[in-house]
Parts: sequence; C-alpha cells; structure tokens
Amino acid sequence: MRLSQFHLATVKEVPADAEIASHQLMLRTGMIRKLASGLYTWSPLGLRVLRKVEAIVREEMNRAGALEMLMPTIQPKELWEETGRWQKFGPQLLKINDRKEQAFCYAPTAEEVITDFARNELNSYKQLPVNFYQIQTKFRDEIRPRFGVMRAREFLMKDAYSFHLTQESLAETYEAMYQAYTRIFTRLGLKFRAVQADTGAIGGNASHEFQVLADSGEDAIVFSDGSDYAANIEKAEALAPAMARPAPSAELKRVDTPRVRTVDDVTAHFGTSPDRVLKTLLVKGRDGLVALCLRGDHEINEVKAAKLAELPDESVLATEEEILAATGTRPGFLGPVGLPDSIPVIVDRSAAVLADFICGGNADDTHYSGANWARDARLTRVEDIRQVVAGDPSPDGNGTLQFARGIEVGHVFQLGSKYAQALGATVLDEQGKAQVMLMGCYGVGVSRIVAAAIEQRHDEAGIVWPEAMAPWRVAVCIINPKRNPDIAAAAESLYRELSERGIETVLDDRGLRPGSMFADMELIGIPHRVVVSERGLAAGTLEYRARDAEENRAITRDELFQLLD
Amino acid sequence: MRLSQFHLATVKEVPADAEIASHQLMLRTGMIRKLASGLYTWSPLGLRVLRKVEAIVREEMNRAGALEMLMPTIQPKELWEETGRWQKFGPQLLKINDRKEQAFCYAPTAEEVITDFARNELNSYKQLPVNFYQIQTKFRDEIRPRFGVMRAREFLMKDAYSFHLTQESLAETYEAMYQAYTRIFTRLGLKFRAVQADTGAIGGNASHEFQVLADSGEDAIVFSDGSDYAANIEKAEALAPAMARPAPSAELKRVDTPRVRTVDDVTAHFGTSPDRVLKTLLVKGRDGLVALCLRGDHEINEVKAAKLAELPDESVLATEEEILAATGTRPGFLGPVGLPDSIPVIVDRSAAVLADFICGGNADDTHYSGANWARDARLTRVEDIRQVVAGDPSPDGNGTLQFARGIEVGHVFQLGSKYAQALGATVLDEQGKAQVMLMGCYGVGVSRIVAAAIEQRHDEAGIVWPEAMAPWRVAVCIINPKRNPDIAAAAESLYRELSERGIETVLDDRGLRPGSMFADMELIGIPHRVVVSERGLAAGTLEYRARDAEENRAITRDELFQLLD
Repeated sequence: MRLSQFHLATVKEVPADAEIASHQLMLRTGMIRKLASGLYTWSPLGLRVLRKVEAIVREEMNRAGALEMLMPTIQPKELWEETGRWQKFGPQLLKINDRKEQAFCYAPTAEEVITDFARNELNSYKQLPVNFYQIQTKFRDEIRPRFGVMRAREFLMKDAYSFHLTQESLAETYEAMYQAYTRIFTRLGLKFRAVQADTGAIGGNASHEFQVLADSGEDAIVFSDGSDYAANIEKAEALAPAMARPAPSAELKRVDTPRVRTVDDVTAHFGTSPDRVLKTLLVKGRDGLVALCLRGDHEINEVKAAKLAELPDESVLATEEEILAATGTRPGFLGPVGLPDSIPVIVDRSAAVLADFICGGNADDTHYSGANWARDARLTRVEDIRQVVAGDPSPDGNGTLQFARGIEVGHVFQLGSKYAQALGATVLDEQGKAQVMLMGCYGVGVSRIVAAAIEQRHDEAGIVWPEAMAPWRVAVCIINPKRNPDIAAAAESLYRELSERGIETVLDDRGLRPGSMFADMELIGIPHRVVVSERGLAAGTLEYRARDAEENRAITRDELFQLLD
Repeated sequence: MRLSQFHLATVKEVPADAEIASHQLMLRTGMIRKLASGLYTWSPLGLRVLRKVEAIVREEMNRAGALEMLMPTIQPKELWEETGRWQKFGPQLLKINDRKEQAFCYAPTAEEVITDFARNELNSYKQLPVNFYQIQTKFRDEIRPRFGVMRAREFLMKDAYSFHLTQESLAETYEAMYQAYTRIFTRLGLKFRAVQADTGAIGGNASHEFQVLADSGEDAIVFSDGSDYAANIEKAEALAPAMARPAPSAELKRVDTPRVRTVDDVTAHFGTSPDRVLKTLLVKGRDGLVALCLRGDHEINEVKAAKLAELPDESVLATEEEILAATGTRPGFLGPVGLPDSIPVIVDRSAAVLADFICGGNADDTHYSGANWARDARLTRVEDIRQVVAGDPSPDGNGTLQFARGIEVGHVFQLGSKYAQALGATVLDEQGKAQVMLMGCYGVGVSRIVAAAIEQRHDEAGIVWPEAMAPWRVAVCIINPKRNPDIAAAAESLYRELSERGIETVLDDRGLRPGSMFADMELIGIPHRVVVSERGLAAGTLEYRARDAEENRAITRDELFQLLD
C-alpha cells in the first residue's frame, strides 16, 4: 500500500475521556473514531488490524472443525422468553420494537437462536457432535461504556456453540476449543494465560477464561510459579493450611477497646499482626443472618460465599440496625464468642486453624483476646470463602501463587443442558430415545483483542504490534526523494520486491520530513522500518530499525529479506 | 470438506410462503433458515456462498483503490436529523431507544455517518479523492418482507462513499466503480446489465443500476438490440417520433358515446386502433389541475411526470369530484378540446404528432373524432412522459428497445453535494478556501446477489451455481465403499489431490445411496460431480458430469484435472 493513496490521519491531541493507553493510542493513530457513547467507527487503519485478528480466529476455528454460519443481529423476543433471558439479561439487552410493534433485541450473544436452529436441524445422534460459530456484531447496552473498544456497546465477537449427546463428547470439543484458543493467542503474538473461571449461576461443569496479560487489566488472575495452574481470583481455591489447629494456650480475656474498630486499630491496640486477628462479617442469608469469619489479613471472596447453602446468589451485608438487633452491638465489635445460636458461623479454612486469637466482643468497645474455637466459640462449618493472596500454596500442590492483571479476551464454557432443556432441543439416541443435547459455548472478543494487545504492547512512541496483528509488517520510508530521484526509484523497487514476496509493506511516499514520518510509523506500530536515504544508497545499504529496538542498523537488501522470511 | 463432518440438511418440503425459486431453493438446500419475518440465519452451506460473493466484492473494491472501514450499525438520531432523514426515511428506519432513552436507528445505509467521519477527517484537497467502503449488516424495516433474502429486513450490503473536490474527479471515481462492478458481476459468472437509472429526488448527476437478468425479476429494464444502451423503465427516454405532425384532414366531430369509457371501448366503438386515440389524465399539480395527454396505447411514466415543473414530487390523480367540478364531466370522457384555460395541457411526444385523433368530449357520454392539435385543442407543452414500449427506437439512435426483467443488485450514484452540504463537510482547496465536497455512493446487495444468482440459474433439480459462487467446485461421490474398500481409498486420494491443487472439493462420504447423494449434489448446485465406482475403478476412469450437462461421461483423472484447471 502506498501511504499517499491510504487514509492515515494521526492526531496529537487525545480527548480527556480516553483514560487508558489503548484507547488513547487507537484515537491518536486514528484507528477508531467515536460516533456516540460506546459506538466506534473503525478507520481503514484500524480495520486492517481487526481483520487480521478475525482471519486468525476464523482459520483456527475451521482447523478445529467448527462450521461457520451467520445469525441475525436482530432476534425475536419470543425466543428470549423461552429461556427467561428476556427479563434476566437486564438492561444490557437492547430492546427494539419494529414498525408492527413486535418486540426484538439486538443480540448480545446467541444461545437462544443457535439452540432454536439446533432443535430444528438436529434430529439424530448421528449429526453430533457439531460445533457452529459465527463472527458477528454484538450489542450490549453498557451502563457506562468506556475505554474505547475495550468496553464498547457495539463490538465484534466470535461466538461458537457445540452440541453433544454425551458429557464425554462435550469435554472433547471443549478441549479442542481450548487448544484452538491457545493457538489463536499464540499466533497473535500475545502473552496470555488460560485461567480457570467460575461457572457461576449457569452451573456448567468447566470454564476457562483466556486473559491477555496487561498491568492495566481489569481482572486479577493468579498463577502458580511451580506449575501451569492459573485461575481468576474468584475461582482460585485457598487450600486448607497443612497444620492442624494448635490447642488453646491462653485464657479468654475480655478487653475494653474504645473506638478500636478496624483490623488496623486492633493490631495497633494489641501489638499483634493481622493474621492473629479474626474478623467477622454478618450477611443476610436465605433464613436470617449468617456470620462469616476470616483472618484479619484476608478478604472475603463473594463468588465463593455465594455458593454457601445458607446464602442467596447475591448476598449483602446486614445493616447496622440488623446487627444491633441481632447482637446488641455495632459492626467493628462482632465476633463468634457468644453469638446467638440462631446465627450459623461459617469459618474460612485459614481462620479455622487459629488459636488464641483476638476477635470482637459482641458488645460496643469490647474485644476478646485468647479466644479459641470450640472452647470459646461455636464453629458451624469450615469453608473456603476467602480471596487467595500472593504466596498461598498453589491448589494443584506445586509452587506458590502469584498475581497478575489480565484482560479477558476469550471464554470457553461447558453449558451442559441449560439452553437445550429450556428450548426442548433433543435428538434421538442410538436406541431411538429423545435426549436433550449438551452444549458448550466459546467466545472470543475480536475487537477487544485489538485493544488488549495495545495495552500489553506499547511504549512512549506508540503501539508495538506483534507481527501478526500489524497493519503492515514493514514500512519503507523515502528521505528527500525530490533532491535525488534515485532514492524514490530504489524505494519503489524495494517496495515492489517486498510486496511480491508476500510481505505486507507500506511505502511512505507522502513526502513528509523524516521526523514526522518516523513518528507516524512508530505511533502506528509497524514492526520493521526501512529507510532509503542518500547515504545508504551510496553505501549499498538500508537503514533498518525494529520497532522495539533502540538503534538503527545498516543492512543489505538480502539481509532484510532474510530477516523478514 | 468431508460431508460427514459438515452440516448439510436438505429438506423436501418447502413452506407455502416461499413464492419464488430462489427462496424455495435456499430453504430446500438449507442455505438459510427463517428466524422471524425478514430475518434469516445463514447455515454453513449458505454462508460459504455468501462469503464467496463478499470476497469478490472486497477484492474488486480494493483493486479499484477503495479503502475498507467499518461503521457502527447503531447510529445516533442527532446525525440523521442533520440531513432530515430521521423523518424522511419513513417507517423503514428501525428506531431504537437505549437504556438512557437516547434515540438511535439501525443503519439502512450510512451517508450520515461517513459524511460525519469525512467532515472530521478530511481537511484539505490533498486528501482527495478518497473512496471509503464497508461490508456491513444493514436493516430496513420492510412493511412486507418477502422472497427470503431477496427482500429481507436484515441483509449484508457493501456500501462505498467517495469524496471529491471537483465534478471531474467524482466522474472519474464513478467510472472506476462502474468498471469495478462490471468486473464483480462478470467474475461472479452472472448475466447482468448496467442500466441507466433515474436520480430521483436527490437530483444527482448520474446513476446506474446493476441488474441481474432473471424472468422473475421485479424490475423492468429496457435495452437496445443495436447498442449497449440499457436503462430501467423509469429512466428510459421515449424519443420524439421522427415524423412531423400531419396537417388536419378530418372535421372535428362530436359523437355520442354512451358508456364508452376505456380505450378498449373507444377503439371498439370507432373501429380504430388505440394509437389513434388520445387519452387524457387529470392530476393534481402544484397550482391546480394539470392535463396529461398520451396515445391510447401508451402508459404514463410517473417518474418522468414527477419532473414536470407543474407537478409535485408525488402527484396523484384528481378525484371524480374534482374532475366534475373542473370540467363538468367524469373520468372516461376527458379530452383536450374545450378544456378550461386554467388547466395546462402537457402532451407526450408521441401523442403530439397525432392528427385527426379521437378523444373525450369533456361531457358525459361524448367523444370527438377528427380532433387536431392547435386547430381544435390547446397544447401547452410537449414532453416525454410515457413508458417506452418494445420496438421504440433506442434513445442513443442505434437499434430498437427490447424488454427484460432484472433484479437490482448494485447501484452507483453521483450524489453531488447533498449530504456534504447538509453536514457542512468542507475541505480547503488550493487557494485555502473552504469548499463543500462532492460525493458518490456505490452499493452492492451482497446477500441479495446470492438469491438473484439462483433466480437466474436453476433447473428442476435445483441450483446451478456459477463456479465462482458454488459452495464447492467439485463433489466427489463414493459408491458402495463398504463392499469395496478400494473405492473409498481411490475417492480419498482423488479428494486429497484436488484439495492440494487448490480446487475446493467436497467428499460425499456420508454413505448414502447414489440416488440421494446425486440429488443432494444437484440440489445444492455443485458445478462438477465425479463418481468413484466399482466399474470405473476397473476401467481406470471416473464418471464425470457437469451440473448443466444431461449425461455422464467417463474421464481419466488427468482429464479431470485439465478440465478444472
């Protein structure tokens, strides 16, 4: 591509609402332009990158035997009502009335439509397994769209749905998709981790998120330094400590602690460390209040807590009034000693092995020291209810856990029979009996990958694309062609030869000054820059610089071809 | 592709609402499935065809120097109000409120968004000309969606928009797009015509429709048998007859004609032919009624009539009451003789050369014979206001006009300054002066092409794809592999070799009986079918049949490769 015949419109200023690097750089390079909140136009430059991601996703899905199809973006309410998601999806679902006042939505995902397709098209176990996918525009009416295409309302997504007779077959396709995703992100040249994810309310059997690693990532992920274990923080298990609970050695002592409310207050007052302190949360359970006890240095994991039989799917803390009514004290002085028998006491694994601990006294301005389970405090059940912390042992027994930040760009999920059951999608098995199919679903945020890659790979000068995602692999820059026509001719010839070798090349023939030209090529992140200059022409060399290098180096044409092969 | 690993689901029955061949065949082959009125899911089979069309369109747009980009499907009301189209587009525009009650529409076309993009991105004449395009889902809320994807509500369209400083530059890009479209439809292997089209209310300078020829087409197109002139019927000019008007030779005679109202009645009553009869229509003009006079064998062309200065953009016939009030008679007895002076008399070119004609008497149950212009009847102006008919001379002077039916699949249009003016899209010219840009727009109905191709190319057995659009070029069918394992091996080896040669091949390894297998391959329109059978294996030949041939022929492997090269 000759840049003189392309539309490149880099800009210096970036709107103040662009908070993160990828959003800023996509605007500065002109890859995207905002049309309205959460709606972006992809310019020719941006689309070149988006299409490369799309092509790799498509190739790997096809290689894995998935069949591409295309579903409408506008989908009828009736179908979404069959699964109950017309209501349950909430206000993110963009609802639409057509001219006849029939209700539709703009699909944020396509389980309903594909399962409807499957119940009509699939009749026999002989047609299974089958894995359908599409790469199609989606819409989620985010309450607060932000970060450019990272959390846009309209976005490009690859969504796949597989259908099975048996769990074994589902697990096989799930594994194939896991491998396909691994190949996708490896080919894209991104650092990523496949992390175990919680299956949430759907209650499927297995789920992994594919996370592109970036310090600015919204998601906390944990991984082992001694194995390939990785999980998102909601899912990561905190193992029970290997040690047994020591026998009590101190007396239970009631201590006046005026205005000592927080864990910090308590450690300062008692001259101890937070891992010797027990904190108690009172939450609203399905039948009355429930006490959750953790070590002072640990935090509650709400996803784990939501799985307790005593708690609803979304639990909330008891109010100050409710706490006062139930215990006679205020938050800050709660503890398991002397708590009314009606309140179950669920204790985190790490907190359950404490002895001689400090906890609230269930009376204002009062704590206990030397408290012990069983002897002093009732313990209903021990559970894993906390967030893991760096240094925890890895749940697979190998190594210790480390933290990283990630951006979710892919998700594989064993849905089980949820949607097929709701829509009555059955096939006849070998015995001629109707069986509800099992399903898996597999998403990739195609447009989001572009932003995630930039978050992971940028510097002060701009984007540092991996080769597979760059709008062009090579930029050929011409210095002062008007003073020396040989330069233009040499650059043209180099550009032609690179193109003929199938190396995507952009020729910067805009006639800009070198500084502006180089700044543009660095900003838009072209991996390889070659300069044809008067001096180089005389010496028979080209000035070459890799995007991530500090210095130019002089190389011959042949060396350049070798390097790009 | 091995068919055993594909999802092919042909069906025998077709819903009664599928009226035309393409709709029926797309359902029978399983290419599409209906989700709701005007909304279709493209199955893996259908999508293979759609993507081939899309790829050819993209290649030719790129070759012509157009730059691909991607605009949101959901677009804000504010922008559509700037051009007035929020109202003017009518109920086909699908309007949507988001969760914050902001109004949007699902784009049926993207002039507003691209012109907004251009006014922000293009500042200097140096950036011109530029031609942006996208291949993106569109939505039109048709009152009566029908014919499957031929007139669906959601559809895939390629829309391009070019920007220019001068009319000369616009004309150049328009010509380049015309040539690109010609290449697209030629490569697709379709019989088509580029026909002159009316520029309508937008009033641009030039417009051509690309019509795929098919007897079932909705559009009437006319073409010359002696040149490459072609136009849609609205646009086709009816030349003035070469002859001058003969001098009057008959007396004007008032004739009682009870109940003689229609042209047929008149010709029967007077024993003459309709080309000797003048018919008169009274329509509501901008200032009172206007008379339009045509030969009895001609029909009014409403698009031409709408361009008369006296008429509004959409004119309607006067009511019986209005006619009675203005002329004292009822429809059926109108004529130019004695019509009140306040009513302009616009006469079609062919009617203007009539002499001694028959016309209504402007009194109930009365006609005139021997009527003549000037002597008996006032003639305000002669205009081309009729539909052309077969046998009319071609407007370019070469040959006579013939009729055909077509399906509009592409449209190129010189928009001029309409949208750029409305949105204030200007660039600085060489003198540093702001100039409103000129625009062209260029659409291709990507999904519609698939249906149009089927309308043009099908027979009783099913679709007859041109090579470029076929889901696969070749089908390799295996007969009785279980009885003779050599057959399966030979078919596998043939399949592999074809695939390695880059020839898209499907291996029918489903183990069906020959009849079912052949019926499927003919139904889905595979251009080349090769059968590996016991007999052929013994003779060292393959049974080959082209989709459009009547008979099999035995050919060798090498002959097959030659044939497909």
